[in-house]
Amino acid sequence: MRMRRKKNLDSRINDLTDYLTLLKNDSLNFNDAVKEKHLIDFGELFCNSNPVCLEIGCGKGQFAITFAKLHPDKNILCVEKCTNVIVTAAEAAKSSGLKNIHFLCTAAEYLPSYLCENSICEIYLNFSCPFPKTKHIAHRLTNKRFLDIYKLVLADNGAIYQKTDNMKFFEYSIESFSQNGFRLSCISLDLHNSDFKGNIITEYEEKFSSQGMPIYRLEARL
Amino acid sequence: MRMRRKKNLDSRINDLTDYLTLLKNDSLNFNDAVKEKHLIDFGELFCNSNPVCLEIGCGKGQFAITFAKLHPDKNILCVEKCTNVIVTAAEAAKSSGLKNIHFLCTAAEYLPSYLCENSICEIYLNFSCPFPKTKHIAHRLTNKRFLDIYKLVLADNGAIYQKTDNMKFFEYSIESFSQNGFRLSCISLDLHNSDFKGNIITEYEEKFSSQGMPIYRLEARL
Repeated sequence: MRMRRKKNLDSRINDLTDYLTLLKNDSLNFNDAVKEKHLIDFGELFCNSNPVCLEIGCGKGQFAITFAKLHPDKNILCVEKCTNVIVTAAEAAKSSGLKNIHFLCTAAEYLPSYLCENSICEIYLNFSCPFPKTKHIAHRLTNKRFLDIYKLVLADNGAIYQKTDNMKFFEYSIESFSQNGFRLSCISLDLHNSDFKGNIITEYEEKFSSQGMPIYRLEARL
Repeated sequence: MRMRRKKNLDSRINDLTDYLTLLKNDSLNFNDAVKEKHLIDFGELFCNSNPVCLEIGCGKGQFAITFAKLHPDKNILCVEKCTNVIVTAAEAAKSSGLKNIHFLCTAAEYLPSYLCENSICEIYLNFSCPFPKTKHIAHRLTNKRFLDIYKLVLADNGAIYQKTDNMKFFEYSIESFSQNGFRLSCISLDLHNSDFKGNIITEYEEKFSSQGMPIYRLEARL
């Protein structure tokens, strides 16, 4: 079911200039994204030189906002392709007065056009859409075409942190990271019954975990 | 609980010369095992030049015997350190009249002394002891010290196939393989509810699966 366009969406977006940037992707195709550069200056965006983390698929922003509060020494850049959803996240960030968070409305495919190489220290993939059908495999955020983007933008010693409730997607992700040169660590096949400390619970995680479903988590590094 | 020594063990072993070899490890320590060579001639042992597979921790041999029946074009070498247990497996193999199976009574640590480099095409780790305590981590058959042995004896394009019912051991194994240069594929976090074809069920697997526990499986290649 397609989400109904929010009321006054344009004016709400206009009120969020410090928190939300709508990236124009229409003129770009995937292959041009690496070549056509509109690089974001993080120093200018965040008014500091702290490390920048990236969440891809931030939804309504619960994880990113909590992360920004807990890590004032880091900046978090949040990517979400649905305007209707990201506007809620950006408004919540604005309400909380946080200065180390910014939202980009775009699809992950276009990130190479906007992010400098080796500029991101941590990438978070929280409960990304699992795209269960094989014909949609290329849309999974741990498919090779996205891993190639992460390799491009990740800083040396950078890490990717993935959480999901979807077993098949997690199996696929382990294989995909492993087959594409990433080393895996801190694997958890039941995060909420593990020794892991410092987990930030997302909206989806709350829902799935309360239904008794195990939460899967991994860390991947080059 | 330590298993009672079987009756007439020595004479039963003497009747199994074509099926069972007791390797003398007493004079060897782990560090000498790579240096002190008593290499087994597979051509002589199996009277053919077919590829040789290795099961480490074969227990009573259910997997290996089924494997040998299903794959007459391969030989299987089965390692088990407990004489009491391996004698049952070797007797079962003898009864079935199989010619492509042989049992080695030794600990996996000593294999470099007996197996040629690059001589093994497949290694099977079926329901190995998980050694849950951290102080026993070095005993896990997916610990780096064993992975180094597998690297030594595995042929080019060789593969390791692991199954376990133990979640923590599986998490550990994924990390250990990944951190030690292996690439993972065919990950299954619930083998018996997956599309995997051709699974050979072991004694332990039957027991754990009937209790509703998921069976974990991976493949690892260099």
